[in-house]
Amino acid sequence: MKKITFTLLLVAAGLGTVAGQEDSVMMEKIYSKSFESGQAYENLRYLTKTIGNRIAGSAKAEEAVNWSKSLMESLPFDQVYLQAVDVPYWHRGATEEAYILPTNEPLQVLALGGSIGTGKAGLTAEVIEVELLSELRQHGDAVRGKIVFVNKPWDESLVETGVAYGLNSSQRSRGPAEAAKLGAVAYLFRSLSSSTTDDFPHTGGTRYVAGIDSIPAIAIAAVSAQKLSAALKKDPKTTVFLKNESAWKGLVHTHNVIAEWKGTEKPDEIITIGGHIDSWDVGEGAHDNGTGVMGTLDAIRTLMELGYKPKRTIRLVFYMNEENGVQGAMKYGEAAKAKSEKIVAAIESDAGGFAPRGFDIKSSATAVSWIQQHWKPLFEQKFWVSRFLQGSPGVDSGVWGAHFPNTVMFNFRPDPHRYFDIHHTAKDVFEAVDRRELQSGVAALASLLYLLDQQVDQITK
Amino acid sequence: MKKITFTLLLVAAGLGTVAGQEDSVMMEKIYSKSFESGQAYENLRYLTKTIGNRIAGSAKAEEAVNWSKSLMESLPFDQVYLQAVDVPYWHRGATEEAYILPTNEPLQVLALGGSIGTGKAGLTAEVIEVELLSELRQHGDAVRGKIVFVNKPWDESLVETGVAYGLNSSQRSRGPAEAAKLGAVAYLFRSLSSSTTDDFPHTGGTRYVAGIDSIPAIAIAAVSAQKLSAALKKDPKTTVFLKNESAWKGLVHTHNVIAEWKGTEKPDEIITIGGHIDSWDVGEGAHDNGTGVMGTLDAIRTLMELGYKPKRTIRLVFYMNEENGVQGAMKYGEAAKAKSEKIVAAIESDAGGFAPRGFDIKSSATAVSWIQQHWKPLFEQKFWVSRFLQGSPGVDSGVWGAHFPNTVMFNFRPDPHRYFDIHHTAKDVFEAVDRRELQSGVAALASLLYLLDQQVDQITK
Repeated sequence: MKKITFTLLLVAAGLGTVAGQEDSVMMEKIYSKSFESGQAYENLRYLTKTIGNRIAGSAKAEEAVNWSKSLMESLPFDQVYLQAVDVPYWHRGATEEAYILPTNEPLQVLALGGSIGTGKAGLTAEVIEVELLSELRQHGDAVRGKIVFVNKPWDESLVETGVAYGLNSSQRSRGPAEAAKLGAVAYLFRSLSSSTTDDFPHTGGTRYVAGIDSIPAIAIAAVSAQKLSAALKKDPKTTVFLKNESAWKGLVHTHNVIAEWKGTEKPDEIITIGGHIDSWDVGEGAHDNGTGVMGTLDAIRTLMELGYKPKRTIRLVFYMNEENGVQGAMKYGEAAKAKSEKIVAAIESDAGGFAPRGFDIKSSATAVSWIQQHWKPLFEQKFWVSRFLQGSPGVDSGVWGAHFPNTVMFNFRPDPHRYFDIHHTAKDVFEAVDRRELQSGVAALASLLYLLDQQVDQITK
Repeated sequence: MKKITFTLLLVAAGLGTVAGQEDSVMMEKIYSKSFESGQAYENLRYLTKTIGNRIAGSAKAEEAVNWSKSLMESLPFDQVYLQAVDVPYWHRGATEEAYILPTNEPLQVLALGGSIGTGKAGLTAEVIEVELLSELRQHGDAVRGKIVFVNKPWDESLVETGVAYGLNSSQRSRGPAEAAKLGAVAYLFRSLSSSTTDDFPHTGGTRYVAGIDSIPAIAIAAVSAQKLSAALKKDPKTTVFLKNESAWKGLVHTHNVIAEWKGTEKPDEIITIGGHIDSWDVGEGAHDNGTGVMGTLDAIRTLMELGYKPKRTIRLVFYMNEENGVQGAMKYGEAAKAKSEKIVAAIESDAGGFAPRGFDIKSSATAVSWIQQHWKPLFEQKFWVSRFLQGSPGVDSGVWGAHFPNTVMFNFRPDPHRYFDIHHTAKDVFEAVDRRELQSGVAALASLLYLLDQQVDQITK
């Protein structure tokens, strides 16, 4: 009985059909080409080593925009253009310091994106430690004049580190306003890090709420957080000195970078693929998100090198400022909506360049089931890509997708084990990327792009 | 219709049953424990950093044996013992050098395990380059007095790097004897490396054939191989100087390390789990195979920490000399056969400590199908472990399994992308291992061990 079931599954999976065999042959070509002559890794080297990190609004971000445009222009796209977008530019400033007093023991910190500065003199205050923001209100007036220190450890138990990140990340964004409302003078937030044993602080976006006084909002590394917590247990009156000079610098005129490869049969049907070109201002923005932009570009380049002619229009988008405002994705969505474009599918890569594991899919359960039956078998055994599950789109697609509720969206999922160890830190550098893992992801992206171009009507009908 | 299919699959998978839910709860505990308090990573640090590499027969290998025994004795095993085994000890010697003449351009080389030396003066000879050993015979007498240089590039197109390794590895083992038979003076073998852009030579075992003169057998790094090939294209009369001082040092008395955790219900049914404790004599033997021994030990320790009581006897085996003779596995098999033991299942870990992907299974197709239906769903979505395919056992299990043809064998499969970049090189060090990836593998191993202990009769009946 088991053998019969297996045979039935193979037939259902389309591997027994001529079309399934053609797809399989095409994917072998894609994988060979990507491993043998893929350029994502060398392009990533340039983006990270020559340009470096590139926070939206900075000169480096604009350098990345212009270099990306020239890279796209070197390929046989039908059209390459910049899409103007204004972003608020936040600058970290020269100094970031934190010490436990009176021992002067240093704490490793990084201001959160959007934080105001402490002023040149810095500030010194007692510390109130909580694990959850909800505990703050119970402390009432005791919060006034203090540094709020949210010290919630990472949930280590989950293989899916993205879920662990999600469990704590709202405290990063909501925290400064909630602390300020109760009269706190600064917000110290334990880094969202899957490593509990290193002392690298992780930055990330936060936000203030209009009408509530802004306070400095600063990430503290895991080991430093444990150190501070121990000092507070010993002496609850322990004070901390904080100094940072970050500030908003106003609006800067910048761009999304877009390239189009026109469809030969249904040019009005658009498949959007891409990721964000900006990064945080520490490390080199390698896994977040150099691999995403250089990977999606190389997926298209691989199909071009194979002489492929797309049926539908494939549009590559490098979004500006995913990290600190999402203005690029908003602009992309507004422009596409104004033209009433028919975006039939979207792929986003913004979860690192580790070994590819699959795609989260924003679509009906019926469509996901169809994909599991027809496409998963093409990827699973030979190429080690096997996750095709209903899930959320990437951040940028999710934002512009508000205008396109029927677009089927794929969120590329590389292996999740290492991502949140280096995410938003000085450790996110070119050397943390493995060439074979990256090019394997390029091949997975190119394969999905090919299958969507050929058969997207099967999951949108 | 698709929804019905999905429900049926869930029911078939046992997730709807009470037993399936119990297994699922147990696996959550295993994963939490492994990530939160796993000790594989810190034990690996000791093995690699304090002991270091440990070729069979060396003092370091015996130090690893004794330390492993004391580590096992610190846990509540019922019995810990050494199993005596004699291994031939091969020593690399102090000097390994290679130059292109007359330019004196250095080539990065490592003698292959088992190679004889060139003598103190070294040797200089012309070079005959081929891609395949089969081409050698066509050259006939031209081989005499020359260095045979086998320069077959790695097949980059495969995600499954183990297959690419297998495509070329027989030329490493058969090459020296075939070259010597035709009168060659040395054998220079392009390293089995998935990286084409680095200059790290990869060692590995080779063998001579009785009755044919032995010649020095040396691995050359990928970039050096390309350099030498270019020099030969420019001038086919180019000569190479080679010097190495390696030699066999006779038999050394050493040990397998074994620990037993006695079954409470069926103590005579044994599940063997483990990997090889020896390594090559370069790097630190981290992924090959420090992660395998420290990982399988920690899988058992995790179950112990959870208060688990096994139904069957779980036997941990650290095999001696997988790399250069497999004597440990032979001894284990002979001893088990002599006692007519009932080894119902075996797990081996010898493919690195990268993110776990699944297990290759040596068993009937029916058993694999049962595992895919009942166990795979427990691993797949939550823990990202999804490969349960019929395949080969590990090297050690394969050797002793000759005496136990009915034992179901599981070969642990971590992600294959990075392994053959560092395999058998100076790059195989502790820093190449990620703690979360390693402990995720420990949890996968512990989960499989638990399922086998509970339900092995389902796949052996």
